[in-house]
Amino acid sequence: MRAGLIRMNRIKEINFTDAVAIVEPGVFIAELKSAVRAQKLFYPPDPASMKDCTIGGNVATNAGGPRCLKYGVTRNYVIGLEVVLANGDVMRTGGRVHKNKTGFDLIGLFVGSEGMLGVVTEITLRLLPFPPARATLSAAFATASQAAEAVQSIFAAGFLPSALEIADHLTLDAARRDLGEKIVPEGNAHLLVDLDGQEESVRSEAAAIRELIEMRKPNALQIANGEADCEKLWALRRQFSNSLRATGLTKLNEDVVVPRSHLVDLMEFAEKLQVKHGFPIACFGHAGDGNIHVNIMADRYSRDAAVRTKVERALDDLFAQVLAWGGVITGEHGIGLAKKRWWPEAASGVARDLHRRLKHVLDPDGILNPGKFL
Amino acid sequence: MRAGLIRMNRIKEINFTDAVAIVEPGVFIAELKSAVRAQKLFYPPDPASMKDCTIGGNVATNAGGPRCLKYGVTRNYVIGLEVVLANGDVMRTGGRVHKNKTGFDLIGLFVGSEGMLGVVTEITLRLLPFPPARATLSAAFATASQAAEAVQSIFAAGFLPSALEIADHLTLDAARRDLGEKIVPEGNAHLLVDLDGQEESVRSEAAAIRELIEMRKPNALQIANGEADCEKLWALRRQFSNSLRATGLTKLNEDVVVPRSHLVDLMEFAEKLQVKHGFPIACFGHAGDGNIHVNIMADRYSRDAAVRTKVERALDDLFAQVLAWGGVITGEHGIGLAKKRWWPEAASGVARDLHRRLKHVLDPDGILNPGKFL
Repeated sequence: MRAGLIRMNRIKEINFTDAVAIVEPGVFIAELKSAVRAQKLFYPPDPASMKDCTIGGNVATNAGGPRCLKYGVTRNYVIGLEVVLANGDVMRTGGRVHKNKTGFDLIGLFVGSEGMLGVVTEITLRLLPFPPARATLSAAFATASQAAEAVQSIFAAGFLPSALEIADHLTLDAARRDLGEKIVPEGNAHLLVDLDGQEESVRSEAAAIRELIEMRKPNALQIANGEADCEKLWALRRQFSNSLRATGLTKLNEDVVVPRSHLVDLMEFAEKLQVKHGFPIACFGHAGDGNIHVNIMADRYSRDAAVRTKVERALDDLFAQVLAWGGVITGEHGIGLAKKRWWPEAASGVARDLHRRLKHVLDPDGILNPGKFL
Repeated sequence: MRAGLIRMNRIKEINFTDAVAIVEPGVFIAELKSAVRAQKLFYPPDPASMKDCTIGGNVATNAGGPRCLKYGVTRNYVIGLEVVLANGDVMRTGGRVHKNKTGFDLIGLFVGSEGMLGVVTEITLRLLPFPPARATLSAAFATASQAAEAVQSIFAAGFLPSALEIADHLTLDAARRDLGEKIVPEGNAHLLVDLDGQEESVRSEAAAIRELIEMRKPNALQIANGEADCEKLWALRRQFSNSLRATGLTKLNEDVVVPRSHLVDLMEFAEKLQVKHGFPIACFGHAGDGNIHVNIMADRYSRDAAVRTKVERALDDLFAQVLAWGGVITGEHGIGLAKKRWWPEAASGVARDLHRRLKHVLDPDGILNPGKFL
């Protein structure tokens, strides 16, 4: 007899003074963020799918999002876990304190383990004070190099924006076709800069960053203050994936990370791959930390095995180059099934061996999320 | 024949564009911080001992410091490691990218493992842009409750200071005897608030926090702008440990963490412990994250076994209460040898069993830092 499905989607506690939330894994990220915000608290991770993804999944993949440039990934906010181990033991580790050096980092072992080491049944999150103000700058440039130079000048002036997003010309072209010329600023590269904090600080910092961007001669530059106006500028960014899908092609979203010095190299390399393999390749993502979504746009992908093989060849080239630059093949999505094929290139033999030994000690019978990358 | 000692104290690379530093474990934290600062980069962790402690030790203990309120602990900055495993294998994991979801979090496994799982031989650190401006507020209050209320009002207004330090009356008394009445402001509790960021932002935020503190009727309040003047206000804080040692008593520094709602409870409980066990107990530390250094001041500690037993009884009481509040017995120092006695209370049976299994898989012969808490 099959047991009934337990949804485990309760927010058990939100406490302002302790700045913690205790939640079950089925809570959606958007729901969590708005519930803590109602108490002047802030849960920073903001994956694009936050309306459809849960904190349990975010813990399993150590999810990020644009704001993790300033605020870090899911791991930085998990301070307590209840985990059911493969042998049936229920382990509680960590708790409701923001700092903890009791033994090894067991929390880190489970966060990002893709469900392969244990089943997380309760999560305690550390929260921040909600930053009361926000500003967004949206800039379009003739070239990706100009956008990348603007990024460097922002860092050189000592700014750490809450987000720094870039998009290439193929992404912008798809958005123009989908949304109309008026909505998408003219140019081959688009930059979105987000600031948050106190009202006066955010206004003066937005003005200073405006000057830095203007020195790079953008085609267009807009500034928004306040949540509602900022979200209008972000609407374009949030539409990129849909605009690419609206081309009718299958969007194969990779999430490589390169050292920041190779940001423009990556976009130029994607153009070479297009020529070599015959797929449109659209790049957009997190310029601030070098985590770029490289989207291979394939026709008849699900129906034609030859297309799928060609995509794999293109990915072979992409991943080999990214690894040669000192980058990694995944910044947010994990290895899972989709990148299992490249796992031997992505980690050294010694590291892969240690993965197997850890998996074996925690799940000797391989009952937890079987068939994945190990 | 014994091999020569290898110091391993080179800074191998600092790269502004990639915002990384690659260092050997013997590099001192103060040296690292000033070397990256010369390139407009920022390594935030700032343990009080930063002139005397190395990045290798900081990685082994996942060190913090006052600034980790805003910036997080060592773990948040380690993006790559070279580790020699117990079997002699050399493993490289992570790299020079700021985001990475390649497999399990092996870096987290080694950071904070107190040298018990491997020997770290190279560390790659992610760096931030150096914040160009800084302000410090120093306030003295009649009671610890007033100081704690000021802390809450700062968070409620959406501020996340870079540091928020509190000290109790015993600490202040010792500082007065050591440094003179003039240097230490009148009152039974002292609060230090640090802000960093852009020049204009920091000035306006310091003014806003001044207003919040003034509403709590402090006995004294000073504001400093700029590195040199801020450091003058911090000189008092940095002297606390020395002032306590200048009493001639042995300072037994614990570093418990309590949920922020129990900050005042902890200080009041420390006063009860003084009455019960007959030791002066001085509390100061990181009010923002509830990590408080509880210093039991013992006479004839090294010479008298009975004193040592009495100290252990006082710690039994302290740790039992901290754990009952949902706190932990160590926020920065780790378990090591000093807290080995309380390891069974500090972690559940299932968690301790998992520690043993992890230790066994990585170091079956127990050759790495033997005799510690496992």
